[in-house]
Amino acid sequence: MDSMEVIRGMSMKKVIVLGGDGFCGWPTSLHLSKIGWDVTIVDNLSRRKIDIDLECESLTPVRPIMERLSAWEANGGKRIDYHNFDIARDYDRLLALICELKPDAIVHFAEQRAAPYSMKNSRTKRYTVDNNLNATHNVLCAIVESGVDVHLAHLGTMGVYGYGTAGFKIPEGYLKVKMCGDHVELHENSNGNVEIEKEILYPPDPGSIYHMTKTQDALFFYYYNKNNGVRITDLHQGVVWGTNTDETNLDEKLINRFDYDGDYGTVLNRFLMQAAIGHPLTVHGAGGQTRAFIHIRDTVKCIELALENEPNRGDRVRIFNQMTETHTVKELAEKVSSMTGTEIMFMDNPRNEAEENELHVENSCFLDLGLKPTTLSDGLMEEVIEISKKYSSRCDESKILAKSKWR
Amino acid sequence: MDSMEVIRGMSMKKVIVLGGDGFCGWPTSLHLSKIGWDVTIVDNLSRRKIDIDLECESLTPVRPIMERLSAWEANGGKRIDYHNFDIARDYDRLLALICELKPDAIVHFAEQRAAPYSMKNSRTKRYTVDNNLNATHNVLCAIVESGVDVHLAHLGTMGVYGYGTAGFKIPEGYLKVKMCGDHVELHENSNGNVEIEKEILYPPDPGSIYHMTKTQDALFFYYYNKNNGVRITDLHQGVVWGTNTDETNLDEKLINRFDYDGDYGTVLNRFLMQAAIGHPLTVHGAGGQTRAFIHIRDTVKCIELALENEPNRGDRVRIFNQMTETHTVKELAEKVSSMTGTEIMFMDNPRNEAEENELHVENSCFLDLGLKPTTLSDGLMEEVIEISKKYSSRCDESKILAKSKWR
Repeated sequence: MDSMEVIRGMSMKKVIVLGGDGFCGWPTSLHLSKIGWDVTIVDNLSRRKIDIDLECESLTPVRPIMERLSAWEANGGKRIDYHNFDIARDYDRLLALICELKPDAIVHFAEQRAAPYSMKNSRTKRYTVDNNLNATHNVLCAIVESGVDVHLAHLGTMGVYGYGTAGFKIPEGYLKVKMCGDHVELHENSNGNVEIEKEILYPPDPGSIYHMTKTQDALFFYYYNKNNGVRITDLHQGVVWGTNTDETNLDEKLINRFDYDGDYGTVLNRFLMQAAIGHPLTVHGAGGQTRAFIHIRDTVKCIELALENEPNRGDRVRIFNQMTETHTVKELAEKVSSMTGTEIMFMDNPRNEAEENELHVENSCFLDLGLKPTTLSDGLMEEVIEISKKYSSRCDESKILAKSKWR
Repeated sequence: MDSMEVIRGMSMKKVIVLGGDGFCGWPTSLHLSKIGWDVTIVDNLSRRKIDIDLECESLTPVRPIMERLSAWEANGGKRIDYHNFDIARDYDRLLALICELKPDAIVHFAEQRAAPYSMKNSRTKRYTVDNNLNATHNVLCAIVESGVDVHLAHLGTMGVYGYGTAGFKIPEGYLKVKMCGDHVELHENSNGNVEIEKEILYPPDPGSIYHMTKTQDALFFYYYNKNNGVRITDLHQGVVWGTNTDETNLDEKLINRFDYDGDYGTVLNRFLMQAAIGHPLTVHGAGGQTRAFIHIRDTVKCIELALENEPNRGDRVRIFNQMTETHTVKELAEKVSSMTGTEIMFMDNPRNEAEENELHVENSCFLDLGLKPTTLSDGLMEEVIEISKKYSSRCDESKILAKSKWR
């Protein structure tokens, strides 16, 4: 199905992108606009403001939101409306916007999304909890109060599963279990015990305050879906790498943000940037941690697929694993090292986690919907290195190391 | 073990009771003070303020907090300190208090605790989420930041389990399961599938916004226990009935609150009050809902037992079911009706729940610690009816019916 078919089929469906100025939200907004959605962005620009407090900024020169949006129109894009307010605090504006627009879908990226930032200190812990939980709850509450039949797509994380099930393939959100316990009356076996088969939400095992809020989000979704029939897709995303998409590549004013600092930089992007400026690749611990990855181009494609294949009224919360491959941190470092000749530096792990873990992930939902994964071998690592080199004069090397201790 | 032994053994251990002015918090504070704890109450009096908005008040004439506390001293009780601030908002005062007092334990009752109130409207939903989640997180965050090795005892609810496991005995917090799925490498059986045995937090199934916040609290506890070693006891309490305890009976100025309204009144107390004033007993639906119950005297005893048998450093979150018996709503109504001759009125159920359910609950933890349950047959129902009759002139009959629709 090409873009024009989508446009014809959808007759300008409306979507609100909450957090549409951020690293995933911005390219998603442009991509949805490109393929025919009428996009409205809500963003309180909190990510840019956190940069100010961290005395850090995107390696790429991100333009102010209105300049970005004008550039999108100047490059032939459809107009995208923008509202600056805090959905965790300004419920009435959120409700009014939903009532006015009657969107078909809301994409919810409006959470504090860095685990290391969430672990920096008491203030960032409390901000992450207060912001993320109230934001998610306000969206659900406003959808119900508005009476509009909105499909909510939420960006979650693979991290909700924890990393403890060696050799076991992580399913997409739900797990079949046999509950073992004392049965009172029926079906007793010879031990007086019984097993009942059930499908449950995968037992969560968060590793940071940030991940914890995502496991709590899952209970908001479970409840509002069960009690009010809200249609929800929760995307358990891997670690994102890459910077630009077809749309953000159109004009430098559309460039996506690129975080390289110890709080917000994701591991592969940090390695590629370190290689570009000749800084040793900093591996936490022995690097035996296995993580799931996805390229930013696949992130935007997955959101497109999730919106075009919305759940029906009455369906339970739909959970997709939004990742395309898994690697150990050490493997990634070795790959970047062999591409670039940069040395690897092993450091004490600031995180409270197992030294190594296996990770096998089911991701057939998106593959069945037609996702063609953009994997590490596709030359996109070179593109990230080029971006890093191009903007290396903007790099503050003192911000590279992760300083947030998780214990 | 009598009270004097406890005092000798404990040498005035210190406890902060968060929400110590409420229905459970007040008698608990007096009881802990009586048996030798040095008690400090923190309460922002939110429960009294909600009554003002609901244009409703306790059937019993509850005195202002300082008058209550003076009466406790006048009746021979030890001095109880009191602080009026909001733990969900005023983190710095909470942290300072913990750092200053270095309490051995904190009992956390400081949450909005009525399911019907949490379902009244968008505002009460959002208040319940914002208050309960930030309150619980602030307590945990402050314990960690203070560096004090505090045992946190939290009042939760049986409602986190949901009511869906017919015939299955609900365990105390944790459930043994066999996880069924695709195993990647090891232990494959003939189908290529595998089962891994694990003990998990009982899969939550909240029935209201209030209950949802308690399931989210469980994830706060899980995380802070795992990452920071915070010692936590979570008490999954049944529906409380009764009014007074030995301590609140000492003086009318010490009387406990008694809620009879559709939002805050619990079912058995509402029936007993309805009987006392000759109002039909209002049963929601056919009354087939089975619930777990506990008398307020056993609530305070359970908190005593939980504090005196604290978990060790390194123990996982300890979860006790704090209930002593189960009954269907219809059984309760019939019991009260036969005691008093009051008729039963069946009404449409405003809640979104199964018409009937079985409920079998494991509660051996408290029984093993020495709890002697105060059950329905002990004549305490008569006591509640006497209280209801004595203060019947304070009853506003227009507040009796539950008006909060859950869909």
